[in-house]
Amino acid sequence: MSVDYRGLLLELFKAAVNAAAPALCVPPHLPSKPKGRTIVVGAGKAAAAMAAAVEVHWDGPLEGLVVTRYGHSVPCRSIEVVEASHPVPDEAGPRATRKILDKVSGLTADDLVLVLMSGGASALLSLPAGDIKLADKQAINRALLACGAGIAEMNTVRKHLSAIKGGRLAVAAAPAQVVTLAISDVPGDDISVIGSGPTVPDASTREEALAVLTKYGIAIPSAVAAHLSDPAAETPKPGDPRLVNTTHRLIATPQASLEAAAKVARDAGFATLILADAIEGEARDVGIVHAGIARHCGTWGQPAEIPCAVISGGETTVTMRGHGRGGRNAEFLLSFAIAADGKCGIWGLAADTDGIDGSEDNAGAVVTPDTLARARSAGIDCKARLADNDAYTVFAKLNDLVVTGPTHTNVNDFRVALITKRD
Amino acid sequence: MSVDYRGLLLELFKAAVNAAAPALCVPPHLPSKPKGRTIVVGAGKAAAAMAAAVEVHWDGPLEGLVVTRYGHSVPCRSIEVVEASHPVPDEAGPRATRKILDKVSGLTADDLVLVLMSGGASALLSLPAGDIKLADKQAINRALLACGAGIAEMNTVRKHLSAIKGGRLAVAAAPAQVVTLAISDVPGDDISVIGSGPTVPDASTREEALAVLTKYGIAIPSAVAAHLSDPAAETPKPGDPRLVNTTHRLIATPQASLEAAAKVARDAGFATLILADAIEGEARDVGIVHAGIARHCGTWGQPAEIPCAVISGGETTVTMRGHGRGGRNAEFLLSFAIAADGKCGIWGLAADTDGIDGSEDNAGAVVTPDTLARARSAGIDCKARLADNDAYTVFAKLNDLVVTGPTHTNVNDFRVALITKRD
Repeated sequence: MSVDYRGLLLELFKAAVNAAAPALCVPPHLPSKPKGRTIVVGAGKAAAAMAAAVEVHWDGPLEGLVVTRYGHSVPCRSIEVVEASHPVPDEAGPRATRKILDKVSGLTADDLVLVLMSGGASALLSLPAGDIKLADKQAINRALLACGAGIAEMNTVRKHLSAIKGGRLAVAAAPAQVVTLAISDVPGDDISVIGSGPTVPDASTREEALAVLTKYGIAIPSAVAAHLSDPAAETPKPGDPRLVNTTHRLIATPQASLEAAAKVARDAGFATLILADAIEGEARDVGIVHAGIARHCGTWGQPAEIPCAVISGGETTVTMRGHGRGGRNAEFLLSFAIAADGKCGIWGLAADTDGIDGSEDNAGAVVTPDTLARARSAGIDCKARLADNDAYTVFAKLNDLVVTGPTHTNVNDFRVALITKRD
Repeated sequence: MSVDYRGLLLELFKAAVNAAAPALCVPPHLPSKPKGRTIVVGAGKAAAAMAAAVEVHWDGPLEGLVVTRYGHSVPCRSIEVVEASHPVPDEAGPRATRKILDKVSGLTADDLVLVLMSGGASALLSLPAGDIKLADKQAINRALLACGAGIAEMNTVRKHLSAIKGGRLAVAAAPAQVVTLAISDVPGDDISVIGSGPTVPDASTREEALAVLTKYGIAIPSAVAAHLSDPAAETPKPGDPRLVNTTHRLIATPQASLEAAAKVARDAGFATLILADAIEGEARDVGIVHAGIARHCGTWGQPAEIPCAVISGGETTVTMRGHGRGGRNAEFLLSFAIAADGKCGIWGLAADTDGIDGSEDNAGAVVTPDTLARARSAGIDCKARLADNDAYTVFAKLNDLVVTGPTHTNVNDFRVALITKRD
């Protein structure tokens, strides 16, 4: 079998990104045209691209506003696109959030609110509830991150301090029909977690939010205390009649993107194994484990018989120890290459589906069976570069970066190992 | 399906250990009785148990000496059992090694030398070659570990500074027939790596050993320099006529133990997936990855459909950050339990097949779907315990330790996750 493995890796990545591309995944999920007005609102890294996809395929008048990350705008005709800061919010976020709430106010049951949600929405939609000051909300957020609170605990608090999260956007839009189209970048694809669920009923209570703050000894400003003791400020619960006209459609997920890539690999004659759609952990160690699994395929024909593609998604983390350049996918890959050690004809690609690996200009990179040999010839000490968190530099010098620019979507990382030889 | 999951986990571990138990895996591989004498020598954590198994099944007179780790003796009738220090050698190791070389000297082609090798043999067989001082050899070993030399580079040096490694034991025993029975605890099961291959021809050269020392700027004592420049001190190369009467049998491997466990799981109605036999990486991150894969089974029926057993072997590492108690398997499991988060009815077991997880008294531990809930009820903060490297304490308090005592074999770690529910 003579295969262009590098070309195939790039095809798999493209298939994964395309499965989550707003231009392709929004249209099939658009609802019918309403009798009344159609308001489009939304937030996230894909918000502008989703809005543009709606505009292309919508038959009728549209208005609205979406907020996206700086640099993630795409031109829209009728829907206003606002940029704001992510992951640390700036003033543009609350301002846009206020405008979104205004736009969905005063609607009737004949109107439709189309809500476009994607990764990053939570930081971009950051308007404090009631009289709570932005600085107080930010201080509490920082304290929650620092004290080791669980993600569920943090969400309980966030939803109760927000003017839009935890179903409040849907309450503001009632009695209009509310249809949410969501691109998931969260483990488990829980719709109430994406953007902290602005259109999703919230089972958590003010009392629970207060209990979390107390548990971790977090200072509670008076405006926060007042808000959390006001029954009228409670988030809408499951079964709330104001949300009866609310539906949600998950239009892109990490798993669907992995499946799309797996199909391309199968069509190319590879056995495929999807390990998981939400792999977490330190990037270099995740790389070692993936290399162990890949080498086992090449040595024992398990967990998949060669030639095979072992695929995974999720989001690793990088603990900075050095001073080099590189995102989590590059770091994963360099560690993967070292552990694979040129054995079993192993090729690999890891990249962020949003097109940006960390803060560099690449989406990810490619590993070839001779990555280590080529690095040696080029005088590169791969272990030393990994120790310095400098994986970007290695792959840049080897001309193995994958550069796409922002893809205007995000279903987290995409990783694939092609195992091509028995060793 | 009503299954005693905890009982099944323990059965799987038992199957993995039994597949490598000297009493069971030595007898089928014993060679025929020779015309002349039979000398049994060996080293490693399993050496005494292997010698005892030979004695039980051998028809004829036996003599010899094996060296094992302190506490790993079992009684033998005719074969002398010596204990020495591992992993840092003490004086007992070189003394026993000298005796082993004496015992195999002066044999004829009618005699048989049975060499019993297992994990730990390299440290236990630590006699310097020629006039090299033990202190010099130890200093070079420490320098190699500290400078980041690769494992192949370290082995090249070690074999050339040793009186017994790199095939020299087989040279000493020539012209006798030499049969090596080996229990593998090394990734790839390379017979030349187990105990640094005392009966295996060595493709590496004195010049290469010298080049490694020079590359890393390691000081070369004069006795070492003299030895490495003496052609008569070269290790035997592949094809060396002195090793023509030498054979090797791999009688137990990590993979064979994983397969034995997988069979028990299949017989109990579980789909099985062996991920890899040589998974490495930081224990807590390997735990997170395993949990991600287990949860994906429960959520998507991939990479295996539930109910399933996901099995792996290898040897993780623990970077000490805190002051608690626990080996790498306990640390893996606590991280695994936190990341599994009680989802998908996930059970888990991780244990060292040698019966000792790190420096504690347990082989490993068990995780149940309610591990986190039980810990909470008991007032245990699992994340804080993990941060303090204190996983042993958690599983001890929960009564979930797996205690076997030394098993007198070692095919590295055994891990299994049972995924029992769709979530």
